[in-house]
Amino acid sequence: MTADVTDAVVLFSGGMDSATVLAIARAQGFRCHALSFDYGQRHEAELAAAARLAPRLGALDHRCVRLDLRAIGGSALTDASLAVPEAPGEGIPVTYVPARNTIFLSYAVAVAEVLGAGAIFIGVNAVDYSGYPDCRPAFIEAFERVANLGTRAGVQDRPLRVHAPLIALSKAQIIQQGTRLAVPYAETVSCYQADAAGRACGRCDACRLRAAGFEAAGIADPTRYR
Amino acid sequence: MTADVTDAVVLFSGGMDSATVLAIARAQGFRCHALSFDYGQRHEAELAAAARLAPRLGALDHRCVRLDLRAIGGSALTDASLAVPEAPGEGIPVTYVPARNTIFLSYAVAVAEVLGAGAIFIGVNAVDYSGYPDCRPAFIEAFERVANLGTRAGVQDRPLRVHAPLIALSKAQIIQQGTRLAVPYAETVSCYQADAAGRACGRCDACRLRAAGFEAAGIADPTRYR
Repeated sequence: MTADVTDAVVLFSGGMDSATVLAIARAQGFRCHALSFDYGQRHEAELAAAARLAPRLGALDHRCVRLDLRAIGGSALTDASLAVPEAPGEGIPVTYVPARNTIFLSYAVAVAEVLGAGAIFIGVNAVDYSGYPDCRPAFIEAFERVANLGTRAGVQDRPLRVHAPLIALSKAQIIQQGTRLAVPYAETVSCYQADAAGRACGRCDACRLRAAGFEAAGIADPTRYR
Repeated sequence: MTADVTDAVVLFSGGMDSATVLAIARAQGFRCHALSFDYGQRHEAELAAAARLAPRLGALDHRCVRLDLRAIGGSALTDASLAVPEAPGEGIPVTYVPARNTIFLSYAVAVAEVLGAGAIFIGVNAVDYSGYPDCRPAFIEAFERVANLGTRAGVQDRPLRVHAPLIALSKAQIIQQGTRLAVPYAETVSCYQADAAGRACGRCDACRLRAAGFEAAGIADPTRYR
């Protein structure tokens, strides 16, 4: 499981999935560079959690890139005129941010190229993916191809790999794996509308998936609810 | 050549290539939405040219998204500590911005998804591409796949096409085609280090390619040099 030590850019939101991914990348021996985005999301508590958690989880450094996705709009997470749903719906949810993972991964490629990193880690999940198209395995594979064709990596034959270690795991399996790696889940924030102290609403899609995950994993839910 | 009228997002820097692309997209009957990026580049005159030229070239609107690529660094175009070269070099030049076209196209996908546009136009060019890996046809094809897999477009079976109409043209052919479409090249800015009035240095890679293009096309160079 342990690879040669090499540098990895880890997309890290401060939520439970990306905290688990950072712990996995470290356990595999990567030198990890955490990368967060401030994209006008409603849950800024998640970013505060990211800044606290990155060094605790062994990241060598933590970048936060400010993105102006509000200029694009179209999502309840970045557009204050759209309400966050509190009941399960059908199809792609309104909390979907257009092309979000594509944009995040593009920045990760840029950082990887500047650092000379050979790996990018992202916490997408195709099982409990909540209907987002950019969480599917085919998307990750296609993006890896773009990353190699669009950078020096491809030209200089030093391939860049995109790792999505949670992609085939259920929320319960993610929680079980993270618990074995001592991820402090009480300090991760998943809620789409957490309050300033990071306390969760308990009602949005992200809260419902998270709570169901702890229940299915048979692990007490440490989430701080308001 | 004329398609059904549909919406297109056109990556538009205000330089000669993207001005030609916008004219081509309009000539093909697309309803065009121009998209520029302010990424801390040294040549802000190019953005001022973009704002003036977009409506003249028939764009319905013009968005400018601010990107913080300085946080990433690694290029003479965004990192003031690196000098812009004034003589031809070998390999990938220092003016290469890491993953720039990947990031630009990712935002174009987000805007296309919000607008319901079915096309993205980008002015990359594989002939005089100055050594940038993200200007190659294989990169554009791979990105089109990502755009469709990562958005509602792919899920809802309304494919998004990435058009790169300059990709196989020489600079001279681009200039000839744009001249037929009445692109006002005197007002486009290509120079990597244009002054505040948009006047070109005449020495950087971009200036050398542009001047050689006018000469090869047999068209008088209208560029304003300082």
